Amino acid sequence: MTREKLMNVEELQRQLDASEFDVVVATSLWNVYYTSGAYIHTQLSIPDRLAIAVLPKKGDDALLVCNIEESLARDESWIEDVRSYVEYAQTPISLLVDVLKDKGLADGRIGIEKRHLTAMYYEELLESLPKAKIGVADKVLEHARSIKTPGEIERYRQAGLATERAILEAYQEAKPGDTEKAVLGVMKDKVAEFGANDIDFAILAAGDHCYQAHPPARERPLERGDLIRVDFGGLWDGYGSDVARMAVVGEASDAQKEMYRKHWQVQRKAIEFMRPGVRGCDVFECCKKAYADVGVDYPGPHAGHGFGFAGHEIPMLQPYNQEELRPNMLICIEPVVLFEGLGGFQVEDLILITEDGSQILTDYADTEELFVIQ
Amino acid sequence: MTREKLMNVEELQRQLDASEFDVVVATSLWNVYYTSGAYIHTQLSIPDRLAIAVLPKKGDDALLVCNIEESLARDESWIEDVRSYVEYAQTPISLLVDVLKDKGLADGRIGIEKRHLTAMYYEELLESLPKAKIGVADKVLEHARSIKTPGEIERYRQAGLATERAILEAYQEAKPGDTEKAVLGVMKDKVAEFGANDIDFAILAAGDHCYQAHPPARERPLERGDLIRVDFGGLWDGYGSDVARMAVVGEASDAQKEMYRKHWQVQRKAIEFMRPGVRGCDVFECCKKAYADVGVDYPGPHAGHGFGFAGHEIPMLQPYNQEELRPNMLICIEPVVLFEGLGGFQVEDLILITEDGSQILTDYADTEELFVIQ
Repeated sequence: MTREKLMNVEELQRQLDASEFDVVVATSLWNVYYTSGAYIHTQLSIPDRLAIAVLPKKGDDALLVCNIEESLARDESWIEDVRSYVEYAQTPISLLVDVLKDKGLADGRIGIEKRHLTAMYYEELLESLPKAKIGVADKVLEHARSIKTPGEIERYRQAGLATERAILEAYQEAKPGDTEKAVLGVMKDKVAEFGANDIDFAILAAGDHCYQAHPPARERPLERGDLIRVDFGGLWDGYGSDVARMAVVGEASDAQKEMYRKHWQVQRKAIEFMRPGVRGCDVFECCKKAYADVGVDYPGPHAGHGFGFAGHEIPMLQPYNQEELRPNMLICIEPVVLFEGLGGFQVEDLILITEDGSQILTDYADTEELFVIQ
Repeated sequence: MTREKLMNVEELQRQLDASEFDVVVATSLWNVYYTSGAYIHTQLSIPDRLAIAVLPKKGDDALLVCNIEESLARDESWIEDVRSYVEYAQTPISLLVDVLKDKGLADGRIGIEKRHLTAMYYEELLESLPKAKIGVADKVLEHARSIKTPGEIERYRQAGLATERAILEAYQEAKPGDTEKAVLGVMKDKVAEFGANDIDFAILAAGDHCYQAHPPARERPLERGDLIRVDFGGLWDGYGSDVARMAVVGEASDAQKEMYRKHWQVQRKAIEFMRPGVRGCDVFECCKKAYADVGVDYPGPHAGHGFGFAGHEIPMLQPYNQEELRPNMLICIEPVVLFEGLGGFQVEDLILITEDGSQILTDYADTEELFVIQ
């Protein structure tokens, strides 16, 4: 994998240059992958086993991993300076401290991912580097990642389309009496068939559970009149998807049809509204107002989010976010309204912010009407 | 789900009573699930969106979640006092602070998961509660979780057996020329067929990648002579599995057979060695010595781990760990040796520590010989 294709090299350097830091230290799966090319998934399953990308403003990067991940890191990363620690014999932070000292950065301004690094490791770092100025660098990395390269956009577009197709084909094959789990299983099988290595998350909320945001899929058979909401994402070598599509079993009630229609129109208004310069809070307010116009109170907490390795990324479309949309951002637009009794309503699409507007990338099929499972 | 079946109520109360804390605050997916019964999986995918279990030494527990998870939390949890925050309008920590004040615990001794809570939230907590004594409570929760109830043991046993069976059946169906991804896909399909809701992790390391600990499965076709190492886990309503099984395509070389045999004997020695009172470091040393006896240097970092919701749990079988094995602990024993060229060797089984020894729970099939894919 080439560095240029995966990451926005210029944007990252611009963000580093504009930051207050001499060095930024990445520790999350998404930022280490983005800045090193090494996808070390044990960063999620074994969170104590840190992988760390050391990114000086000037000079060469370094990648620090547990010794048993070293061969993978050397295989996958474009960073040449790969170093390893033996877990339990040495802490990852003590290796980081050694590397920062090597590079003459130990007394400098060090930016860390404070929204990722745990309190335990943070305190170890503070105690080990009493002269350093340690600050919050999450935004430096998030801003760089938020502006996608053409290669990234194409990967996410393909992932989104495959996910949309998997959901729709599973709806087409589903029948009343199939269990919630079985229908969701078909979707999972299909994204795997379409090349996904992993399932990132998979929500199928049906019938009396449809109004819950993230309920577990059950062995319960689908019944006539069930409203179904699927929110689903696969992973293609770490590149994910996040698409929501709805269906009804048999025939929708007038109330379901009407609410779906209102909801769909709100989402479309928001998509039309999105363009460079519009802020996250503006998109949220656009949704809130569009709902209010059709008599629905929108509680939030958000109406969508930037999309990338971390799932929910900047810019969040939430009422307090002043960040502006910029060209080549990818946004998942997903206002959600949940009514006990009637059900939950959610259509989620992947949107590219263009130079002067926005473009729906997940356009495999029309979503204007509720899909009907016969 | 009943509280008694899921969690070891007595052990948790014993650990709380023995601790220095007035209240323990759980924030990780595994500890919130364990102490509340609510499985809020967005705790992993949207880590800023904390779910928090507040567990006073005396008095009633409380469960704090984002408002969109509130109905799920009320459905699933046995904790009656469920409170919610609106994301972005209020931080989860500010709600936690309010609840601790309500309970008269804000100036007390508060134990947190320092290996889970991020530096950002930790600092917010420190600043909000200047009079509190905030300490490390990870071990309190880990010790409670480490002693399993009969109900838990049975769930993990079933999960382990289903996983073992999935791997073996996929090996039986595999043929030379099948891709790495396809064979791993069959295993995933099978655990889903055997009731798993999710894949927790799935490693298939074959051929020239077999010596890497956690490489990605490729589109590469399996070739005669390939050594294959699978390390695989599914999730059944949050209850996981972690099983490793090996195979060879066509016929094993003498060197492969010999190393597999040596490796298997080391693992069996360790299993026989495990009993109450033996420490984590003792099991590690047992493996290291058994390897040394057959001319292999064992680098670690560990030889296995306690098993439960968090995957790697206490007691870690690592050279510095003084914790003792106790009855009703579940242990994944998995010494791993990785040789560039020859390949990686790993057989991982789920072991129950009994009153006077240990018992292999993943005994679906014999592992004494390398499985041969024809």
